[in-house]
Amino acid sequence: MRAHQRPSLADATRGRILFGGDHNPEQWPEETWHEDVRLMKEAAVNSVTLGVFSWAKLEPRPGAREFGWLDRLMDLMHDHGVGVVLATPTSSPSPWMGRLHPETLPRDAEGRTEWWGSRQHFSHSSAVYRRYAAAITDDLAARYAGHPALTMWHINNEYCTYDYGDEAAAAFRRWLQDRYQTLDALNHAWGTAFWGQGYDRWSEILPPRHAHYMKNPTQVLDFRRFTSDMLLECFVAERDIVRRHTPHIPVTSNFMPLWAGQDAWRWAREEDVVSVDLYPDPRDPLGAQYGALVQDMTRSQAAGGPWMLMEQAAGAVNWRGVNHPRPRGLNRLWSLQAVARGADAVCYFQWRQSRQGAEKFHSAMVGHAGERGRTFQEVRQLGAELAVIGPEVAGTRITADVAVLHDWNSWWAGEHDGRLSQEVDYPEVLRAWHRALWEAHLTTDFAHPEQDLSAYRLVVAPQPYLLTDAAIDNLLAHVRDGGTLVCGFLAGVADEDDRVRPGGMDARLRELFGIRTLHEWWPLDAGESAECDGFRGTLWSEELEAEDDAVVEAGYKGGELDGLPAVLRRGTAWYLSTLPEPDALRALLTGVADRAGLRPVLEGLPDGVEAVRRGALLFLLNHRPDAVTVEVPGRHRDLLTGDLVTGSVLLERHGAVVLQP
Amino acid sequence: MRAHQRPSLADATRGRILFGGDHNPEQWPEETWHEDVRLMKEAAVNSVTLGVFSWAKLEPRPGAREFGWLDRLMDLMHDHGVGVVLATPTSSPSPWMGRLHPETLPRDAEGRTEWWGSRQHFSHSSAVYRRYAAAITDDLAARYAGHPALTMWHINNEYCTYDYGDEAAAAFRRWLQDRYQTLDALNHAWGTAFWGQGYDRWSEILPPRHAHYMKNPTQVLDFRRFTSDMLLECFVAERDIVRRHTPHIPVTSNFMPLWAGQDAWRWAREEDVVSVDLYPDPRDPLGAQYGALVQDMTRSQAAGGPWMLMEQAAGAVNWRGVNHPRPRGLNRLWSLQAVARGADAVCYFQWRQSRQGAEKFHSAMVGHAGERGRTFQEVRQLGAELAVIGPEVAGTRITADVAVLHDWNSWWAGEHDGRLSQEVDYPEVLRAWHRALWEAHLTTDFAHPEQDLSAYRLVVAPQPYLLTDAAIDNLLAHVRDGGTLVCGFLAGVADEDDRVRPGGMDARLRELFGIRTLHEWWPLDAGESAECDGFRGTLWSEELEAEDDAVVEAGYKGGELDGLPAVLRRGTAWYLSTLPEPDALRALLTGVADRAGLRPVLEGLPDGVEAVRRGALLFLLNHRPDAVTVEVPGRHRDLLTGDLVTGSVLLERHGAVVLQP
Amino acid sequence: MRAHQRPSLADATRGRILFGGDHNPEQWPEETWHEDVRLMKEAAVNSVTLGVFSWAKLEPRPGAREFGWLDRLMDLMHDHGVGVVLATPTSSPSPWMGRLHPETLPRDAEGRTEWWGSRQHFSHSSAVYRRYAAAITDDLAARYAGHPALTMWHINNEYCTYDYGDEAAAAFRRWLQDRYQTLDALNHAWGTAFWGQGYDRWSEILPPRHAHYMKNPTQVLDFRRFTSDMLLECFVAERDIVRRHTPHIPVTSNFMPLWAGQDAWRWAREEDVVSVDLYPDPRDPLGAQYGALVQDMTRSQAAGGPWMLMEQAAGAVNWRGVNHPRPRGLNRLWSLQAVARGADAVCYFQWRQSRQGAEKFHSAMVGHAGERGRTFQEVRQLGAELAVIGPEVAGTRITADVAVLHDWNSWWAGEHDGRLSQEVDYPEVLRAWHRALWEAHLTTDFAHPEQDLSAYRLVVAPQPYLLTDAAIDNLLAHVRDGGTLVCGFLAGVADEDDRVRPGGMDARLRELFGIRTLHEWWPLDAGESAECDGFRGTLWSEELEAEDDAVVEAGYKGGELDGLPAVLRRGTAWYLSTLPEPDALRALLTGVADRAGLRPVLEGLPDGVEAVRRGALLFLLNHRPDAVTVEVPGRHRDLLTGDLVTGSVLLERHGAVVLQP
Repeated sequence: MRAHQRPSLADATRGRILFGGDHNPEQWPEETWHEDVRLMKEAAVNSVTLGVFSWAKLEPRPGAREFGWLDRLMDLMHDHGVGVVLATPTSSPSPWMGRLHPETLPRDAEGRTEWWGSRQHFSHSSAVYRRYAAAITDDLAARYAGHPALTMWHINNEYCTYDYGDEAAAAFRRWLQDRYQTLDALNHAWGTAFWGQGYDRWSEILPPRHAHYMKNPTQVLDFRRFTSDMLLECFVAERDIVRRHTPHIPVTSNFMPLWAGQDAWRWAREEDVVSVDLYPDPRDPLGAQYGALVQDMTRSQAAGGPWMLMEQAAGAVNWRGVNHPRPRGLNRLWSLQAVARGADAVCYFQWRQSRQGAEKFHSAMVGHAGERGRTFQEVRQLGAELAVIGPEVAGTRITADVAVLHDWNSWWAGEHDGRLSQEVDYPEVLRAWHRALWEAHLTTDFAHPEQDLSAYRLVVAPQPYLLTDAAIDNLLAHVRDGGTLVCGFLAGVADEDDRVRPGGMDARLRELFGIRTLHEWWPLDAGESAECDGFRGTLWSEELEAEDDAVVEAGYKGGELDGLPAVLRRGTAWYLSTLPEPDALRALLTGVADRAGLRPVLEGLPDGVEAVRRGALLFLLNHRPDAVTVEVPGRHRDLLTGDLVTGSVLLERHGAVVLQP
Repeated sequence: MRAHQRPSLADATRGRILFGGDHNPEQWPEETWHEDVRLMKEAAVNSVTLGVFSWAKLEPRPGAREFGWLDRLMDLMHDHGVGVVLATPTSSPSPWMGRLHPETLPRDAEGRTEWWGSRQHFSHSSAVYRRYAAAITDDLAARYAGHPALTMWHINNEYCTYDYGDEAAAAFRRWLQDRYQTLDALNHAWGTAFWGQGYDRWSEILPPRHAHYMKNPTQVLDFRRFTSDMLLECFVAERDIVRRHTPHIPVTSNFMPLWAGQDAWRWAREEDVVSVDLYPDPRDPLGAQYGALVQDMTRSQAAGGPWMLMEQAAGAVNWRGVNHPRPRGLNRLWSLQAVARGADAVCYFQWRQSRQGAEKFHSAMVGHAGERGRTFQEVRQLGAELAVIGPEVAGTRITADVAVLHDWNSWWAGEHDGRLSQEVDYPEVLRAWHRALWEAHLTTDFAHPEQDLSAYRLVVAPQPYLLTDAAIDNLLAHVRDGGTLVCGFLAGVADEDDRVRPGGMDARLRELFGIRTLHEWWPLDAGESAECDGFRGTLWSEELEAEDDAVVEAGYKGGELDGLPAVLRRGTAWYLSTLPEPDALRALLTGVADRAGLRPVLEGLPDGVEAVRRGALLFLLNHRPDAVTVEVPGRHRDLLTGDLVTGSVLLERHGAVVLQP
Repeated sequence: MRAHQRPSLADATRGRILFGGDHNPEQWPEETWHEDVRLMKEAAVNSVTLGVFSWAKLEPRPGAREFGWLDRLMDLMHDHGVGVVLATPTSSPSPWMGRLHPETLPRDAEGRTEWWGSRQHFSHSSAVYRRYAAAITDDLAARYAGHPALTMWHINNEYCTYDYGDEAAAAFRRWLQDRYQTLDALNHAWGTAFWGQGYDRWSEILPPRHAHYMKNPTQVLDFRRFTSDMLLECFVAERDIVRRHTPHIPVTSNFMPLWAGQDAWRWAREEDVVSVDLYPDPRDPLGAQYGALVQDMTRSQAAGGPWMLMEQAAGAVNWRGVNHPRPRGLNRLWSLQAVARGADAVCYFQWRQSRQGAEKFHSAMVGHAGERGRTFQEVRQLGAELAVIGPEVAGTRITADVAVLHDWNSWWAGEHDGRLSQEVDYPEVLRAWHRALWEAHLTTDFAHPEQDLSAYRLVVAPQPYLLTDAAIDNLLAHVRDGGTLVCGFLAGVADEDDRVRPGGMDARLRELFGIRTLHEWWPLDAGESAECDGFRGTLWSEELEAEDDAVVEAGYKGGELDGLPAVLRRGTAWYLSTLPEPDALRALLTGVADRAGLRPVLEGLPDGVEAVRRGALLFLLNHRPDAVTVEVPGRHRDLLTGDLVTGSVLLERHGAVVLQP
């Protein structure tokens, strides 16, 4: 099949925003199904995801097939105008599989088996698992290929397993043979001369299992790459099966947000629809910023195109230490934020709250309180509004002048056992940089370090610890071509094999930023800060010697690094050897953006108010704890109320307006 | 044997308070034995427990029997007027059992074997273990059935093991078959439709072993029920053996206090004597209240009758992070508290402090300092006093108008992986409510939610998360019959299978309390509190909509729940959607009790002074850090000094008086 | 071979200080080797350690031998005047060993295998491992016995493994049979009568594996002794092999500092050279004191003779939570401190920083920044200075009048599961006492409790929890002979089998200190302190009753222990029942030393300035955060500058001077 023939999210949305969620009616008596469709209609639900975790229901014993209940459900949904995202049930094998084939159960690094009785107890490398998964997928796809309710395929669910067992070890060796061809190449890549780890036969290689002391970092890195790739193989295998049956139906699998287990850049290329699950903590004062980050990242993985919010919670989740519900208005606010940032589908886990099982306290669109509950009342209002917004935004795009570099390889490699600071957490650093841009009201994309950056006047690289030669060339070209680059500490330290580059930082990058010698890294203790000119740095500092023609934009003040560069610049290439505190990083990036000719979405926005333009619409979202009036030059129409907005608009607490020109 | 023929604690006490403790003379040369009996006489010790952990001594190799040393000990005790509580040694199998029969060793959820070299390394489900345990029990009982020193049987010790291994898995399946009869019933009860856990054959069912993510809550709940029942089977098997030999001798096994592993309501029914081990931390400012709770609970399990304090520490224990001794007077104070609250036996672990082994720093009646040590000197004084008190109290009862509901099923079910708040700890909530009543000087019983509550004018239910239909009927009847009910949050949420009841709370209970809709649970963060009218709530809050005729006794103030009911009342049924801070809960329950016509044991008692009436005696116990004078209307005789008490009495720090009318 | 024929460190130093470090050129292309020797010459490096972790390089498959690369390296070093400390590579078996002989892999107490892929994955008890280790050692020694570069043998590296597996269990039984001869003796020593652990056959005995509850303390103690002895057997086996080939070459293995795994008193007797790895945290305000402690201890293990600093870090390590580099001057300061306290070798891990592997962020003499880096520049300066100092100090000794008692048995036994306080940490207590003496400017040795103490006027015993009868006799004799003894709490509690001595403290010691009765131990909570006359005690307190003729030097004030002795003295025997806060302990020991006629190294030294006399030299080391002037009576020559010093000398921050008379 040729790429241009591939279906996309637009094939499912058809000019609407999808609204709905995971639906597990097999947990309920059939009379409840009819209650469900009545309430779906009330809430303008137009999409449900069926069949996630239904393997035991579909194949209660090896080879059996029980599709009747699903037939009835598909028909019911179709009869009531609700499209179905149909899931392959392969995320949780039936109990019989573990009993008959214990080798399908994963083992962790400590050698512990992961038993059934929960979910996702499958080894990605198990031939038996894959064979059974292919069979049920094939039969499912065959059966429903022509069903009119079918709008999308959802493969598996939140791929996130690993396996350190023997079958995975064999698969790991095959993967390594593909990657390195020879043992010499592997020994070189892994630096096995250190600690006497030289391999003489492929059969000697293991996953990085429990060990006496620190593990080989490149072995661990490759095992993470391998794990992501094995899971992707599982996805592709099922995708290809359903695609054979329904080439016109788009396929997705839901990512978890900012999740270490999958290299989503690689995955997204294999998907027709990029979807994500997003669960900000309602109590997190930066919850909205975190949501924006995930949304920006997901949109970027979807090549800027619309994406699908596959799961969010209408109220509380149940996996935090303390799980808070969404207060009045917040569900609407965060849902509209997703639409503003490119979502063409706003869905939930789940439609109806389970009365049993491990997630019975995880909220749903219809909670335990039922239709009288506040949560459902707000869901109903949101459904009505999305029905209004849908035709105006579906399929439209967002323009960003700023890109944030992100690569799983940097994350993975930076987390090795023997790093200099356990306080440095890659996702936290990423959040800090994105937050600064978000608070500066600059709309941002995420980008892979090797991708074309010509669309961006400003590129920021919070922590590109590992950079391939191609990525370095790419960054150099960006600056050479007039772009601005702002780079955080621990940049270009390692090559693709996590081999430290001579000098502790790639020589071309040192030259780019004007660093003569990187003498020593000076990580900071938890809670410690480093005084700099005009701000305080956190997490990290460095003993840098600048080239004569580089500009020390800010130096360290006092201490061992007194006078050395905290912020160094050569032309439009900036290097930050520390992480400025939030306000300082925001001010710094605002200034850099300003030099680069970038302006915020709207001038004079109060803190905590988010503005995003999507297509012709302007979304204004109030994340402050109070109501606020926002100046909006010109005349707009409030899309949801029809009111005319001239000069300013009042946003209530948790309020949001969508303005049309 | 018919119930009315059963022996009881009275058969052992015969009008005295038993005083003594665990005795392990096999650790000592026989010359020490004679020193022991001399000191026992000095301290008025009249009871020792022999044979706990003596299996290797009695059966050093499979089938061997070495009773000679025990014969000599039994005779020695009898010769010196000390009765013997004889233990079956089955708590710690001999090393040979693990070596010859490794399947008798338990496995934990992670798959780790629990090896010998400590204690309690037996699988409750092991047929081999049970066979050996029965054989040694039978021979022991046969040998000492007629010995005049024998006063009681002590089966095993602190039953607390679990097993996730294969033999336990088989036993679990049998237990489930008994409970559910059919797989359909089990699948329904466990809600296996969630996450595709449907079982097709009994052989697919496992204990809730280590898994990828959250476990099935009902599977976990049933495994806890099963574990308690398996241990109870072990107990009953041994009990029946000794009972065959000595139908006239009472049988017990010692509970651990507020311990999750055994459903003590079920267990107590099988015992002739209910006994408990009690180790409050001498540094815990609420240690006395904790002791009172355990004593009230144990007495209630003994159907209000006298119970046995099987173990306490004369000084420090050795299993806390830091282990503090009992300061001067505290051992006497806490021992008299136990008597006040129904104990007819005050015993210790142990008589003589071990010089070796894991507990050599656990205190004893005779410590390392020997008879000159302060601890023994105080033990001697206590022994003399108990000899005076004994004839006045032995066999008498305590009257309580208040009952605190408690059920292991609520505790177990509420602890599932996917709960809304890890901050909510069932025993802590129970302690908070009992503390409020204790500080209000109200004597309380504990009660099972399904038991007859007609004796109580006030019933409080701190956290009845799981309630059967029968329990709900019982509570409704209590209120209907004029009783007062005060219920804490998370009440009636789940049915017997931990299935959430529609509406998030049983509809009959909602009606009882006047709750129209329970919109959302709002758990509070650690350290967070919720402002209410007149107090602050902790741990939890709720978004409740009251019925029109319900009375909002206190509302939330400010925040998302402003004005919603924190304390709601309909008639004599009260519902607290938060946990008020200690003083507020005390004030609230004092007020409710007052409305219900209940008065404190003594009016005008200072804080920290505990008053309990047992039989005709009034115990006054000073838990304050200083001396205090207590008003006592009327004339009393101080039982221990013979002094006349008119109007008031001075209680020293750690002081206690026992007053007769 | 007779002892007086044994080679020593002097055979390697030949009047110099060894300067250099671990060198792993097999990680680098051969062109780097030539760069290395050029830089070594610049830095006056005269010694490198080769071959640690090179097993896979030397024996890439079973029985293979590849010595060519090492031949070239040995020659290269010799050609450039660099001596070689040649290591046996047995610390990390090649991957093939684990694959072919999985029984060589250790198992931890939880039953987890320690896989290869890190380092030190060998079971000390494995016959297969030992056979392969002997074979490679033999061939290595045969090949390089006559090589002119060879100056010393380094056996293995940081012996620190353990094994709870089956082969180790068998070895443990053999070790126990040697120790106890009969099972009766073992049962007595272990106190197996407690908790029914009596052994009937040797085959029933296991390592102290994962168990239900606390383990038998003496079993654990013996397992620690066994583990240290098994590792020592491994060392001795390799030592004997190399000694056969090169009787004239000294042999060492590097200790880790204050490390629980090896009884270094026993080990040191088997070594020709005592060496240690020392990594104080540059951020630790007590880092210098910690260094001094390790240096004093190592020197004492070397019977006062010179010792070898085998490893230190020129900058950061990479195994702490946050790893800080050494600021300018600190590397020199701490290196000179080692020389002052007896080191005749100042070496590093490692010469050149690795670009790959788990320790690529661990610093080296030549860091990632290369020769331009500050670190290498400072290394070069240090090398030049050591070349000046070497001839003046090599082989000279240090005199101390104070000894600090230390014994691994006390450490091990005191750590048992059932101790009274988890807050009491043996090494921390040792550090506190040594710190007090260090701050008092008293030079101290460490001593084993059973060794001849006649050289010391003052002996302090921070925490001699376990004392053999011989050790007690030794302490009594020390006092009887006019010596002063100051003893910390938990003294003489246990005998060699960790059996509590009657009275909770040995009766002879109680008499020595004037303790009539030790009623109760009163451990203090974390952060709690006990008011005493003139100071506050921490960690611990005791309810002691003094003999009439003992002097209460300080009593507890207030609380339960009011007036009881905190510091008790009878003659020159002092007992501290608490740990005074640092200033108080320093003042107390200063006073005691003064009474004993001891004076500081130099009068009037400012805090934070360390003075040590070695041979004829006076080292002055500034550990303060600022510069300071030190009064030095008389006339000296500054050895490094040649300046005359009269009356006083200025020490810069991190400054050090070496003065000659």
